[in-house]
Amino acid sequence: MSQTVNIAVDAMGGDHAPGIVIDGCALSLERNPHARFLLFGDEAKMAPHLARHDALAASAEIHHTPDAVPMDAKPAQAVRQGRKSSMAMAITAVKVKRAEAVISAGSTGALMAMSKIQLRTFPGVARPAIAAIWPTVSGEALVLDVGANVDSDIKQLVDFAILGEAFAHVVLHRQRPRVGLLNVGSEDVKGNEAVKAVDALLRAADLPIDYVGYIEGDDISAGEVDVAVTDGFTGNIALKTAEGTAKLAAHYLRGALTSSPLAKLGALLASGGLRALRDRMDPRKANGGVFLGLNGLVVKSHGGTDALGFAAALDLAIDLAGSDFGEQITTALEAVHDKVTAADEALKAEKRAKKEAAAQ
Amino acid sequence: MSQTVNIAVDAMGGDHAPGIVIDGCALSLERNPHARFLLFGDEAKMAPHLARHDALAASAEIHHTPDAVPMDAKPAQAVRQGRKSSMAMAITAVKVKRAEAVISAGSTGALMAMSKIQLRTFPGVARPAIAAIWPTVSGEALVLDVGANVDSDIKQLVDFAILGEAFAHVVLHRQRPRVGLLNVGSEDVKGNEAVKAVDALLRAADLPIDYVGYIEGDDISAGEVDVAVTDGFTGNIALKTAEGTAKLAAHYLRGALTSSPLAKLGALLASGGLRALRDRMDPRKANGGVFLGLNGLVVKSHGGTDALGFAAALDLAIDLAGSDFGEQITTALEAVHDKVTAADEALKAEKRAKKEAAAQ
Repeated sequence: MSQTVNIAVDAMGGDHAPGIVIDGCALSLERNPHARFLLFGDEAKMAPHLARHDALAASAEIHHTPDAVPMDAKPAQAVRQGRKSSMAMAITAVKVKRAEAVISAGSTGALMAMSKIQLRTFPGVARPAIAAIWPTVSGEALVLDVGANVDSDIKQLVDFAILGEAFAHVVLHRQRPRVGLLNVGSEDVKGNEAVKAVDALLRAADLPIDYVGYIEGDDISAGEVDVAVTDGFTGNIALKTAEGTAKLAAHYLRGALTSSPLAKLGALLASGGLRALRDRMDPRKANGGVFLGLNGLVVKSHGGTDALGFAAALDLAIDLAGSDFGEQITTALEAVHDKVTAADEALKAEKRAKKEAAAQ
Repeated sequence: MSQTVNIAVDAMGGDHAPGIVIDGCALSLERNPHARFLLFGDEAKMAPHLARHDALAASAEIHHTPDAVPMDAKPAQAVRQGRKSSMAMAITAVKVKRAEAVISAGSTGALMAMSKIQLRTFPGVARPAIAAIWPTVSGEALVLDVGANVDSDIKQLVDFAILGEAFAHVVLHRQRPRVGLLNVGSEDVKGNEAVKAVDALLRAADLPIDYVGYIEGDDISAGEVDVAVTDGFTGNIALKTAEGTAKLAAHYLRGALTSSPLAKLGALLASGGLRALRDRMDPRKANGGVFLGLNGLVVKSHGGTDALGFAAALDLAIDLAGSDFGEQITTALEAVHDKVTAADEALKAEKRAKKEAAAQ
């Protein structure tokens, strides 16, 4: 861990940039003295914030980029007009191997589009996914895709399973991660056509992964799997719904612990445990979505987060940058790619044969 | 409220039937003395449970049905083989107007298939939806569909908006319910094609409902809308994910309040408030999905619930059965049906015209 890790930071991305970005870097630097930040942004706007953090100012590399990608920029527009933006230049730093990872709290769509163009996807991977780390009763699980793709096809969902499995090895340190496919609850209406086809392909390919089959929404936080695979539309809504429910629970808890003088006294006595609870329920602690499937490490922070949340996403980026994450995923993909293709062709041939038999 | 309300109960549906069903009826009867239960099930199996509840045994009407639909029955199979089952006979009671509502904790797919055949959908409604009541910071919201359909088309999602709006009037007593369409988070990748088309149709139809546009997963529990519309696949996963998160929060809270002797003492002092919290977070209290779009009231209880949960679903069925729910929905649907059809045709014509213009 003592080897220097270089992180390219889009200092102008997010609702409260560059203030919370710089503050977040300072926070993370305290915890990760081996990290070095390459700050891409408007020098004049960054200066007053940097002035408050001596250690960061001394170690960071400042790259002045006058342009920034607006939060509401359409991806195509950002790609065309943002070539010299802080976001684009930070991605370039990873492309040219000056940094091991790039982080941004800017527009998700713009970051994904620019990353795809500059870093390109792994051979055989059509579209990257965003993976989120999800708290469970027994630790953490990985959920993907949580929003990179609003329409995912069957082959892509199989890719997500493989990418997620490799990622769980590296990030969650699981020897043999259990991979599940998110589906609806009732026993008798088992999923839509796409989910059924993904399940069939994952089984037919006989991959060297521990595929456990269908799971339901409540199985994620129950710790039933290490990796939950779903399309970006469903995954994003599930993630946001879980965040909303956690906020609701916190709201109820505040109400319960201020409902009477006795309850308030009780809350005071239990404050140590409750502080730990607040920490665990704090969505900022789980901040940081990782783009999977690219030749380079890209971490997306929530756009509306604060310094604490941005620092948590930075910590994740530093951890990953210091691991052999990229190589492991490449190896895993290479090992299974041919199997998936063969299984896919076999399933299609079977379908054709059935159709022809039915037509006769 | 003093007028008798007749509820047809499938006493054999659910993982722990008929025990928890009978116990649940007894619980609900205490709270709703104007309710009368028509119990459909195996008389010999119900008898020992009824023997423990004098008031229920005295007021209930027992209908002996030797057959029951297995929990894992496929819908088509249940329809074919279950004509004389407790589930089918309970639905018939609503069809022939002997009961104002039917309730079952049995297989969702079987209950939906049988209900559709016996009760039929409202004119103009292609497929019924299941609506769930969702706790929010400001009260309750309605989410639909939470699992009746795994593939919903555009027209069906518009129907769900109208059905949900009418339901929110009656159940949540909102004068002008705000209706939102569940979508993904990022500003720049606004939803898949289906969601965009539903949004366009809802806007073009200029319906007499307060359609607020897109919402995200966390907007539901934040109380941003009264009705959240989504397809059954996404809705079911969102619902289960929220339940899982609530369980996780409760798990963390238990840990926090037993982490030290001081914390335990604090929990004891705050026990009044914490009990109220547990009640609010208890998923059993929100038990009961309502089938919307049928000529008759059908309530589905969780299959794995206990007597407390089944009683909560019964309370909901009794409330609805005593309201003019059915008429209100019929009126609402009639008022908007022509508008939706006209808008749909106009949008399609516009698309055709654009295509033709582009082809020239």
